Amino acid sequence: MLQQMGKTARLASYQLAQCPTSIKNNSLMVIADLLEQHSASILIANEKDIQAAKEQGLNEAILDRLLLTPERLSSIANDVRKVVSLTDPIGQIIDGSTLENGLKLHRHRVPLGVIGVIYEARPNVTIDIAALCLKTGNAAILRGGKETINTNTSIISVIQKALKQVGLPQTAVQCINNPDRKYIYELLKLDKYIDMIIPRGGASLHKLCREYSTIPVITGGIGVCHIFVDETADFDNALPIIVNAKTQRPSTCNTLETLLVHRNIAEKFLPKLYQVMVDNNVVLHTDQNCYDILKTGNATILPVKNEELRQEWLSKDLNVIIVDSLELAVEHIREYGTGHSESILTRNLLNAEQFVNQVDAAAVYVNASTRFTDGGQFGLGAEVAVSTQKLHARGPMGLEALTTYKWIGYGDDLIRQ
Amino acid sequence: MLQQMGKTARLASYQLAQCPTSIKNNSLMVIADLLEQHSASILIANEKDIQAAKEQGLNEAILDRLLLTPERLSSIANDVRKVVSLTDPIGQIIDGSTLENGLKLHRHRVPLGVIGVIYEARPNVTIDIAALCLKTGNAAILRGGKETINTNTSIISVIQKALKQVGLPQTAVQCINNPDRKYIYELLKLDKYIDMIIPRGGASLHKLCREYSTIPVITGGIGVCHIFVDETADFDNALPIIVNAKTQRPSTCNTLETLLVHRNIAEKFLPKLYQVMVDNNVVLHTDQNCYDILKTGNATILPVKNEELRQEWLSKDLNVIIVDSLELAVEHIREYGTGHSESILTRNLLNAEQFVNQVDAAAVYVNASTRFTDGGQFGLGAEVAVSTQKLHARGPMGLEALTTYKWIGYGDDLIRQ
Repeated sequence: MLQQMGKTARLASYQLAQCPTSIKNNSLMVIADLLEQHSASILIANEKDIQAAKEQGLNEAILDRLLLTPERLSSIANDVRKVVSLTDPIGQIIDGSTLENGLKLHRHRVPLGVIGVIYEARPNVTIDIAALCLKTGNAAILRGGKETINTNTSIISVIQKALKQVGLPQTAVQCINNPDRKYIYELLKLDKYIDMIIPRGGASLHKLCREYSTIPVITGGIGVCHIFVDETADFDNALPIIVNAKTQRPSTCNTLETLLVHRNIAEKFLPKLYQVMVDNNVVLHTDQNCYDILKTGNATILPVKNEELRQEWLSKDLNVIIVDSLELAVEHIREYGTGHSESILTRNLLNAEQFVNQVDAAAVYVNASTRFTDGGQFGLGAEVAVSTQKLHARGPMGLEALTTYKWIGYGDDLIRQ
Repeated sequence: MLQQMGKTARLASYQLAQCPTSIKNNSLMVIADLLEQHSASILIANEKDIQAAKEQGLNEAILDRLLLTPERLSSIANDVRKVVSLTDPIGQIIDGSTLENGLKLHRHRVPLGVIGVIYEARPNVTIDIAALCLKTGNAAILRGGKETINTNTSIISVIQKALKQVGLPQTAVQCINNPDRKYIYELLKLDKYIDMIIPRGGASLHKLCREYSTIPVITGGIGVCHIFVDETADFDNALPIIVNAKTQRPSTCNTLETLLVHRNIAEKFLPKLYQVMVDNNVVLHTDQNCYDILKTGNATILPVKNEELRQEWLSKDLNVIIVDSLELAVEHIREYGTGHSESILTRNLLNAEQFVNQVDAAAVYVNASTRFTDGGQFGLGAEVAVSTQKLHARGPMGLEALTTYKWIGYGDDLIRQ
């Protein structure tokens, strides 16, 4: 089954690669319109998924992620319309010149080809990714979570209807609507037809893709993010940043997980931090040194376990660790961080520079919340995923991350000397 | 063993990332000098490898690749000195601006970290790669062919002596000098410490890396390259390009393997081609249609087998196929090509455009030899490898391909709204 899917996706990708921006944009407008026109059937399919999820006893958080409403569907359709207004990167000349050997050489931005995406319970990802792939002239093979199988099948049939209507191949966007996990493994080996795999999910999904895929994988999305409160930090300004980074949306990957506090200010800073965190319903998990300073006897302070420093809380829990120096803060981040987002709060220029230079992460901040690591916030217009690896794309991935380049050389009947 | 190697390489990479260009350049100058000063001991080690290779009955081509002479070593040392003169890409600001949300955001070019390289019999790769990695502030773990183990061990000890002399960690360049293949598998799983794997060798090495590596792999170097002789080609100008692409250096990956000839000119063109190829000692492997036209009864024309269309000859052998149209030429290249280098010889503008747009390869040429796909020819100053995949880098990889970027955001005590 997947061989055939791969083959037809590859063929569709050839057609998409030659497709003018106007037709690609038109396909997006029609998709948005048809999603609204067919909302009744999509919502019925979604209701089936919701029922099945309830019967399986899935928790409220998952149910909420799964749920589509007329309003949500409309908002998703509007997101598709926004992609229309983004600049199409395909066809850009990246650079070029006439070389000493006479070759007129330039680099042309082209689509990657076929993108495979494996994700979990959010049906909006199906539409988002389809829209971003189409905009950049890529074909897509999607494998959503088994909990959303009815919703996804329904959405894909609407997308394919739209593709047909504008004269594009329906195989440009396909989904694997068999929940058997063996198809994930098969997908990951389709290197003959697929150019890039994007996993969107937890750490175990990323690990599985890295281990089994023979196709290049963009891993990311796991953020064990730190803020280091330097000894020169301004307390009144530091606290709102910490609150924002921890509590604005605790379930996201750019949320603060561990606060590192310089020993020289710990005694004065920690009680203030504690009060603010209590006010914001944040539970602290601290090392012995912090505990000794706070000694509140209050159950909202728990001892932090080593493995808790390596994981995302995805909740209003915050680790607090005292470090003796900026060097040791950097060392802690190197040991426990996931290379996502790290921030220093300081008033000292050299310390800011040292932190920025020595911390190896997709995004490093000075006096700013880690929550900024986001395609929208970074002005990329859209976000395909957040990469925490270093090849191809790092940090928030916009449309450009769905492209590659081709070297094009014109010669005047030119041979190599 | 490899865990320790990875760990120390990672630590060295932190130091290299902060290293000023002047010190990195100095390390290269000292490496070049010491290679010449210690040429006697390197050549003795090389002689051991040559003896062992002869005893194993390895062929002349491999022996030649293996062999170092005082002249070759001197020329390799001079190549290292040339790397000094290249612009250091580290520290470049790629782009940046102050965003609507107030964040002053820019992208800074930084080293990848630790590069793993797996290669075969050429000892010059050991020095080349070490120099390019050091120039870009990356640590390297090298695994050369077992045939060069004595030479490589000797070269690495000289490089490490140079690193010590300039105050850089000796663990910045390490080699696995145990020929057991199990260490290749171990290396490919060291994703905790290594950021990128570059295989330099044949198709089976690339396949092995794609299948076993949990680290991003740059695959490439396999070139089943085509030239399409369009019906409007100028014969007198086409023939020298074909000769150049096939015979200038037949063992390279950018060499022409299959010539596609438009049916409408086949009758007139093929006899001319045949004569020129005979003069250049090239053996033709043709389809039945070509054979019917040439009918020489000469043993220098052999029937081409389907599997021969999918492999590199690496010798003075050339497949010749007649195609009915440009569309079918493109289709042939999609089916049999490796996405390396493809060229059209034509006088028709629209055909040139169509070929360039529809052929999906790292380099696509109009009226030029496929032999141009090369870091030196492309003006990149150096060549790390030639990538035929589409992520991160495509085609000849220069110094920039050994770098990534970091998003750096400065805030004025900034929180996300």
